[in-house]
Amino acid sequence: MAVLSRGDIEKIFTMEEAIQADKDALEFYSRGGSTVPLRTNIDVAEEKGQSLYMPAYVGGAKALGVKIVSVYPNNIEKGLTSVPATMVLLNPETGEVGALLDGTYLTQLRTGAVAGAATDILARKDAKVFALFGTGGQAESQLEAVLTVRNIEEVRVFDISKERTEDFVQRMGEKYAKKFNVKIMAVSNADEAIEHADIITAVTTAKKPVFNGKGVKKGAHINGVGSYTPDMQEIDEYILLHADKIYVDTRHGVLSESGDFIIPMEKNKFKEESITGELGEIIMGKVPSRDNDEEITFFKTVGSGVLDVVTSRRIYEKALENNAGQIIEF
Amino acid sequence: MAVLSRGDIEKIFTMEEAIQADKDALEFYSRGGSTVPLRTNIDVAEEKGQSLYMPAYVGGAKALGVKIVSVYPNNIEKGLTSVPATMVLLNPETGEVGALLDGTYLTQLRTGAVAGAATDILARKDAKVFALFGTGGQAESQLEAVLTVRNIEEVRVFDISKERTEDFVQRMGEKYAKKFNVKIMAVSNADEAIEHADIITAVTTAKKPVFNGKGVKKGAHINGVGSYTPDMQEIDEYILLHADKIYVDTRHGVLSESGDFIIPMEKNKFKEESITGELGEIIMGKVPSRDNDEEITFFKTVGSGVLDVVTSRRIYEKALENNAGQIIEF
Repeated sequence: MAVLSRGDIEKIFTMEEAIQADKDALEFYSRGGSTVPLRTNIDVAEEKGQSLYMPAYVGGAKALGVKIVSVYPNNIEKGLTSVPATMVLLNPETGEVGALLDGTYLTQLRTGAVAGAATDILARKDAKVFALFGTGGQAESQLEAVLTVRNIEEVRVFDISKERTEDFVQRMGEKYAKKFNVKIMAVSNADEAIEHADIITAVTTAKKPVFNGKGVKKGAHINGVGSYTPDMQEIDEYILLHADKIYVDTRHGVLSESGDFIIPMEKNKFKEESITGELGEIIMGKVPSRDNDEEITFFKTVGSGVLDVVTSRRIYEKALENNAGQIIEF
Repeated sequence: MAVLSRGDIEKIFTMEEAIQADKDALEFYSRGGSTVPLRTNIDVAEEKGQSLYMPAYVGGAKALGVKIVSVYPNNIEKGLTSVPATMVLLNPETGEVGALLDGTYLTQLRTGAVAGAATDILARKDAKVFALFGTGGQAESQLEAVLTVRNIEEVRVFDISKERTEDFVQRMGEKYAKKFNVKIMAVSNADEAIEHADIITAVTTAKKPVFNGKGVKKGAHINGVGSYTPDMQEIDEYILLHADKIYVDTRHGVLSESGDFIIPMEKNKFKEESITGELGEIIMGKVPSRDNDEEITFFKTVGSGVLDVVTSRRIYEKALENNAGQIIEF
């Protein structure tokens, strides 16, 4: 059994590979080649925590396993992450456990990569300006993913906390400015962030839209990554009603979990039929992609177990090739 | 994170401790102090396998986790176990993974121990003769558990394969005859096995009863451990209809899974009301135990996630005290 920490994974697995893994995972999903049972939730009332079990299987990718995610807000006081996660990867040929992976990093990686995949498929090829809303734990991989798929010249970062924004911009500048030849800057309001943006990613826990949909320029592509509960809404309803094309990672997930869709649907402003398709359906040629440089495209992701199992399978394969991680006799 | 192999567990955790863990687990269960969500099954059709995820939580025992069990009949051809299993134990105070345990051994241990717990509570104190039906992977821990709770003088082993029985009797004799001052012998038919038996355990995959219920002597205690699917029936219906007291590990589990109960119930011969109670209900004082030395008692177990999490938590606690197992930085 291989044990793969964040450091082990960073050394051997690139964002390009993660983006390809997510594209493949979503294509398998949209083709009906995956099994994603309902998540099991256990309430740990004594600790005001929740323990979640998310198994999935994608036969075509030889990917089988379960991500175990705990949501423990009180962990912050203990100096621990509030969402510890571990991925248990099985070998589908024998049913044995093949690897354990750092689930927190896996989640960041596959969540960045899925927006990266959508951006790669949907954003204008000549996109130069990227607006990023949110600077929390998922923001870095969102930034890296977009920088990986387009030649971005300027990143405009906005978050309600100015201090956190400055800190994020400095850290990201040190890590990515030179590598991607890009300027990463903080901006002081949302309008300034989106004014010239060709790509916009929102990765916040907001319950109110974080930017004005009317201010989005023609030809822009938007990724919605926050809003994973029915009461969270970070994307202006204007976008839902006026974007030329709207895509999702999984119809089922987005329509049952994301307030970005559920809230306008409850008001009868938005209908499921207005979703152009799943990202995997573009890849398999079933639905159209962007048709011209004027369209505004919107991609919404809430995540899926197929992203976890396919990405971790690919990481595991590379780890075996490279003798990475710890091998445990068990 | 601790990784605990079979060898690690054997060194630090005794059958007595496993029996106490199972008693506690079933008491928590019967008192309503546990969460046992439905098991998740994933079909891995390509390999004719199944991958099962069984999470559970017992707050009072600080026990949280998921047992991952795969059922891969084709593994035999590959020289691998056909039911590989791994237990992932979480720390309920933080939601982090605390330990991985060999789930195959855990299952054997807790399944032996639960029949051991029932035998300890229900069998006559002066029981001397033990009849064991079945010599498969679960048989050894069944034997050890009964030898642990009663001063058995003679074990009579029967299995449809004479060769397997001889082999089992020889191995068990070497391991346990001296330790428990007991004679372990093969018998050539079922009648001979039960003729003088004070305790009878069936742990087979039989679809037809393995002994004649009318031959069971007064005062005997019977453990039913096989029959974990609706079409398996190893216990004679005569026992269901004539035992003085009938107990189960969990009503829900036994009534939904075991042919020993489902088959006579479908014929309207047996009613749920004829179950005296759960083993945990005896322990909590809610239902009576054996009342005299003449009663025939029957205990049926199909297992439960509470046995897995509580037993593995206790193993983990002892491992920490004894610096046992491998510690993985992760």
